[in-house]
Amino acid sequence: MTKTGHVEMVHGGGGRAMADLIDGLFLRYLKNPCLEQAHDAAVLRPQSGRPVLTTDGHVVSPLFFPGGDIGALSVHGTLNDLAMAGAMPVALTVSFILEEGFSLADLERIVRSMADAARAAGVPVVAGDTKVVERGKGDGVYISTTGLGIAPEGVDIGPHRVQPGQAILLSGTIGDHGCAILSKRENLGFETEICSDSAALHRLVAAMIAISPSIALLRDPTRGGLAATLNEVAHAAGVGMALEEAAIPVHQDVAAACELLGLDPLHIANEGKLVAICDAGDADALLKAMRDDPLGRQAMRIGSVVEDDAALVEMTTRFGGRRIVDWLAGEQLPRIC
Amino acid sequence: MTKTGHVEMVHGGGGRAMADLIDGLFLRYLKNPCLEQAHDAAVLRPQSGRPVLTTDGHVVSPLFFPGGDIGALSVHGTLNDLAMAGAMPVALTVSFILEEGFSLADLERIVRSMADAARAAGVPVVAGDTKVVERGKGDGVYISTTGLGIAPEGVDIGPHRVQPGQAILLSGTIGDHGCAILSKRENLGFETEICSDSAALHRLVAAMIAISPSIALLRDPTRGGLAATLNEVAHAAGVGMALEEAAIPVHQDVAAACELLGLDPLHIANEGKLVAICDAGDADALLKAMRDDPLGRQAMRIGSVVEDDAALVEMTTRFGGRRIVDWLAGEQLPRIC
Repeated sequence: MTKTGHVEMVHGGGGRAMADLIDGLFLRYLKNPCLEQAHDAAVLRPQSGRPVLTTDGHVVSPLFFPGGDIGALSVHGTLNDLAMAGAMPVALTVSFILEEGFSLADLERIVRSMADAARAAGVPVVAGDTKVVERGKGDGVYISTTGLGIAPEGVDIGPHRVQPGQAILLSGTIGDHGCAILSKRENLGFETEICSDSAALHRLVAAMIAISPSIALLRDPTRGGLAATLNEVAHAAGVGMALEEAAIPVHQDVAAACELLGLDPLHIANEGKLVAICDAGDADALLKAMRDDPLGRQAMRIGSVVEDDAALVEMTTRFGGRRIVDWLAGEQLPRIC
Repeated sequence: MTKTGHVEMVHGGGGRAMADLIDGLFLRYLKNPCLEQAHDAAVLRPQSGRPVLTTDGHVVSPLFFPGGDIGALSVHGTLNDLAMAGAMPVALTVSFILEEGFSLADLERIVRSMADAARAAGVPVVAGDTKVVERGKGDGVYISTTGLGIAPEGVDIGPHRVQPGQAILLSGTIGDHGCAILSKRENLGFETEICSDSAALHRLVAAMIAISPSIALLRDPTRGGLAATLNEVAHAAGVGMALEEAAIPVHQDVAAACELLGLDPLHIANEGKLVAICDAGDADALLKAMRDDPLGRQAMRIGSVVEDDAALVEMTTRFGGRRIVDWLAGEQLPRIC
């Protein structure tokens, strides 16, 4: 597309070079009838049900990491935000902000990975936009992805439905994504086989809703990790949470990396895990449905919702003590997603 | 929100500082029942009609310019992309990528301007996301905005409907936005009173569709200007275009600035103008409806669609000559929107 093999300012100018980039790269991989309307906006088929919208900016560094890259991540993250509202995905849009000088081969790898993730999830990318910024005003590529989904009637998921006595379920190990990213940051210099758990959870969620349509809450513990997610929900719902450390699955390499770096797996980002809160009587059936899905094999009941006006998240440790699981006031891991 | 008055990495960490930024700034100005669901995804009311999706990244430099700023621009640009598909807007989402060190006062000014533009248009911002990148990896703030609209049944707008013999209409002067941006670029050093035409065109479009539901094409000539827009359409539709230079309105200050800088107003970006292509018999009624709207007062018929296998856009100049209006192979004005 250019002689240099790199993104140039001209790719963002609205002229022929941009048209060539769109045809030769984005349309080539992301091709579908909507995107081929070749218009700024995509017109979809009428949908019945409640529309659900979500958006997410992706600035992950490094762009490529064990188990994924920014392209797949930007698809999975957005599909998961829809799924956490109980919605099935209908369409995605993507906005690229490219830095002058970025390798077109790397861009192609990212777009291909995005296309593979979207195809695997069965969701088309129907509209996109590309801007180019000068060298030193970006970091290779940033991607903002937006998802449109449809929530079935009768499903009502949110902190307003969280009540004392309910069970807290977790779909698998925590900290994998954050540790995979950290292992690639040059200044940290630790080696591990840990892969990001980046994955699209909408099929797992569909299976869960089929078993228990009255599920109270779903969340994917991304930035800030499980600790931030549970504290946000506790705060919004005006309840406390009582966790059992021994029930929370952590991969042994993640545990080792965290010990080395002085980090707590509860604070580390995930990209393919979910927390569910449900009536205690539904917990076993839900756990079974989760474990039947490849993305929920290690699902566990990790605790209960309790009455607490202070909205604290507390944990019984492996050694029988109790500690407060706080969310971080400061920043632990920037550019993680 | 912080002692320093600047964006810090901690604002993107997923912890308390980010929650404070969201509550204290974004929710404060953009407040609405959907956004207050305080979830990653917003659940909307069921909509009848065809959903329309569009997304746009905004990297305009400078962030503040005569007649607007990146906040209002990011709302107008997205609403206009929906309007160009004949869709009425339902909801917006916004993704902010903030650079460490960016002034929180400037961010507040931008969010307030965005909120004002959304309120004036009658469209809520229902979901958002904020990421922070290190100093030198951004340029203050980038905003990706996505719009969901609904296209009424029966309206079918696109290059496939463009035919020889149809009339080409333009809603007003061209080049105002690009010249307003240029006047603020420090290295150019020209002064002018030109203001950006940044505006939301969905009400103008609704009035036009009410008069002529069979309108064939609508486009807003942004990046690459009127020249790029008409060339794209000619190319997609396999037709030629014959323009009359004398009929194309250009503000005298824009004409003067273009002469000074050696630019062609046909290549300069607009943010509050539209091109319409319609059956010749509908042109007068449409022009009247456009001129009745504050954003279409200076609407003109600027030419006709003609048969041309080469898909050229040609123009009869003020002096009676003819020239080809090409789109630019290279870049003229980067970071314009």
